[in-house]
Amino acid sequence: MPSRVLIEGGWVFAGEGDGPFQVVEDGVVAVEGERIAYVGPRDGLDPAWEPTRRIDARDKAVLPGLVNAHTHHAMSLLRGYADDVPLMPWLERHIWPAEAHLTGDDVYWGTLLAIAESLLAGVTTFADMYFFMDRVAQAVVETGVRAHLSRGLIGVAPGADQALAEGKALVAAFQGAGDGRIRCALAPHAPYTCPPPFLARVLEAAAALGCPIHTHLAETRAEVEQIRAQYGKSPIRHFADLGVFQHPTLAAHCVHVDADDIAILAEHGVAVAHNPISNCKLASGIAPVPDLLAAGVTVGLASDGAASTNHLDLFEEMRLAASLQKVSRYDATVLPAWQVLRMATVGGARALGFDRLGCLAPGYLADIVVLDLRAPHLRPRHDLTSLVVYSAKASDVDTVLVHGKVLVDGGELLTVDLERVEHEVEERARRLARLARGGAADGTP
Amino acid sequence: MPSRVLIEGGWVFAGEGDGPFQVVEDGVVAVEGERIAYVGPRDGLDPAWEPTRRIDARDKAVLPGLVNAHTHHAMSLLRGYADDVPLMPWLERHIWPAEAHLTGDDVYWGTLLAIAESLLAGVTTFADMYFFMDRVAQAVVETGVRAHLSRGLIGVAPGADQALAEGKALVAAFQGAGDGRIRCALAPHAPYTCPPPFLARVLEAAAALGCPIHTHLAETRAEVEQIRAQYGKSPIRHFADLGVFQHPTLAAHCVHVDADDIAILAEHGVAVAHNPISNCKLASGIAPVPDLLAAGVTVGLASDGAASTNHLDLFEEMRLAASLQKVSRYDATVLPAWQVLRMATVGGARALGFDRLGCLAPGYLADIVVLDLRAPHLRPRHDLTSLVVYSAKASDVDTVLVHGKVLVDGGELLTVDLERVEHEVEERARRLARLARGGAADGTP
Ligand SMILES: [Zn+2]
Ligand SMILES: [Zn+2]
Repeated sequence: MPSRVLIEGGWVFAGEGDGPFQVVEDGVVAVEGERIAYVGPRDGLDPAWEPTRRIDARDKAVLPGLVNAHTHHAMSLLRGYADDVPLMPWLERHIWPAEAHLTGDDVYWGTLLAIAESLLAGVTTFADMYFFMDRVAQAVVETGVRAHLSRGLIGVAPGADQALAEGKALVAAFQGAGDGRIRCALAPHAPYTCPPPFLARVLEAAAALGCPIHTHLAETRAEVEQIRAQYGKSPIRHFADLGVFQHPTLAAHCVHVDADDIAILAEHGVAVAHNPISNCKLASGIAPVPDLLAAGVTVGLASDGAASTNHLDLFEEMRLAASLQKVSRYDATVLPAWQVLRMATVGGARALGFDRLGCLAPGYLADIVVLDLRAPHLRPRHDLTSLVVYSAKASDVDTVLVHGKVLVDGGELLTVDLERVEHEVEERARRLARLARGGAADGTP
Repeated sequence: MPSRVLIEGGWVFAGEGDGPFQVVEDGVVAVEGERIAYVGPRDGLDPAWEPTRRIDARDKAVLPGLVNAHTHHAMSLLRGYADDVPLMPWLERHIWPAEAHLTGDDVYWGTLLAIAESLLAGVTTFADMYFFMDRVAQAVVETGVRAHLSRGLIGVAPGADQALAEGKALVAAFQGAGDGRIRCALAPHAPYTCPPPFLARVLEAAAALGCPIHTHLAETRAEVEQIRAQYGKSPIRHFADLGVFQHPTLAAHCVHVDADDIAILAEHGVAVAHNPISNCKLASGIAPVPDLLAAGVTVGLASDGAASTNHLDLFEEMRLAASLQKVSRYDATVLPAWQVLRMATVGGARALGFDRLGCLAPGYLADIVVLDLRAPHLRPRHDLTSLVVYSAKASDVDTVLVHGKVLVDGGELLTVDLERVEHEVEERARRLARLARGGAADGTP
């Protein structure tokens, strides 16, 4: 018999689709196995439905799990390693030299750290692009979270063939793994790192495997200038012409896009992962999110890797996303609270291609966050959506379910040995820093 | 005998002045009475110095208390009351109709809520401009925090004379109150609400009382256009010409300022309170903080009232301040972590005119925050300043001292009855919403 979890008594953020939420006061959510069986007022639930576990949600808000639509989780090992540095020296002098020393075990422990941080912050699904991705998949299977995984492919690097082989092997081995919690993609890194012949090979493999694409697109002005100089068109037109968008595509950033680019994204159903903090911190620019949404483009919210954003907190990303649009457009009405929360939930779920995920509604996958509202920064309670989007913090997350299973219970992680993770990460981060700065592998500085 | 508190074993953010911090590992801070007696490595402390209380700061960071340089604390009663609305309808249709029904008791309880939220988030000092300010002063005296208080003065309103009388009475009654924790100012609200004849009366009173000025300046483009149309000059030139800056002045916002304005601010030693979230949420614009700092202007960090910013969290304000500058200037190096933290501490302390406040150094007032670093979002520990500014959260605040007294102890508020405050605030907020929306005072909707 499947487990039956009853979340009862909270403000339930109900309702499918893209619009404002129907916030049900004193609502309940009934979970059967991995799916939601009922959402709504208490008296609408069949009295014969007997739960095996009850979760008290009084004074709490019940939301769909948050979806981090683009990250490099293992880079949390490099959090705070090099800040306030421009993109190219950041990569060339700091990040790449450190990454060159990463092992599969490093990636595994770094990913576990990021999963722990994310779960405690209400993030139930993430889209990851990195290497040693089998170890990332292992972490996902073990911890019970949901993920969209891909091996990053840099066509201009010496190991391109090997990387592509690993990317294909990942898809073959893990597509649908973890009881369907894992989706795999192929990940040509970006237009400036993947020349057309290499891209053609990736797309051939994607067609053979029937898998989607995850990439970085139009992140910086420099990228757009370079691709225009090289191919006489924008990165998005370039990828469209090469046939990338014949495949379901998740494109991170899309900061520097014009009306033509947006029309291409909309026409081909390309989904965008918006990374506000990363785009600020690396001084990339502000993505035209309201224009993307108005054109019908699916947009998810994302953190990018913690080496550039320094945290994986989608509550703060929601506020920054709204702030950047309002201030840059001199319009306080754009990207209102409910729209940002939809972007962080169902927008991301759709962007990653997960079906029936990201809303609290019957038949949806039971990825749910219970947020404790008993704190002075969450008083008074004029408007619940405003409260959750503009005032709530990651630290207010109380209980988290993924795929119908409780993974965070009253603030406690159930599937991650946090003490072990923190110890491993600290050791490994110190080793990496030493090696990257030119010391010997044995630790001599 | 004065109390002697020893904070020991943490990463201590030591050092006076404006530059990067000297982060002392396994450092100690010795507090005697209301001042810091020693900061530095453990073995530099006189062994004869015996504490009356020890605070274990292992795995913790020890910072100067954060200073919120501009707020309207009682507006936390209206948190989430009207969001995603442009400034003028926000004021005219939502905020002012609600504020018209505020009582002194409302202001008292709303301020206590904001003080509770702020203390738990490591904010030890705030600059408040509102009305019923004697009740705000009462809350400050009772809770033990530090504050810069002023009665907001709107010269064009019917009650202007009464307000000015109240403003003067506040200064007379509370200047230096609470063992010196309270500084009072006069607060002509803004150039567009205070015509020159009224301003002249305020300045005369300021001269007679020997008190500083707190005001709003150059917040929106509309304000600048209006003042230019009316007086043929910028708001800052206008205030300078009227003699406002003959008095020590704290000016909130200064978003729309040109090189000439910045030179005036620098020349007169006018301090600026930078409100990044408020300026985004109300779509006001991005203040040129790096230019202000380069010109030698003192800049503090601020939240503005929670009705527009929805929280009083200076950790998030620090990140937004850095983010806005980097992204709008396409320069990842501007406003680095240490500079933002200086703005949130000693910058604010100077802006508010508190002497020897905002740094951890001998002789400074003992306003101190101890931040717990044992959380996955605070691993690994490559760089402590980056970690505190870019990754730490308000919820990591463990212990807070103000004026040498422990006000938050292991996350527990010692001087605020939180349950009572939350109850009062919820009742009062509901009453205000009812009244503002046209219901009767007895609660009939
Ligand atoms: Zn990325
Ligand atoms: Zn203000």
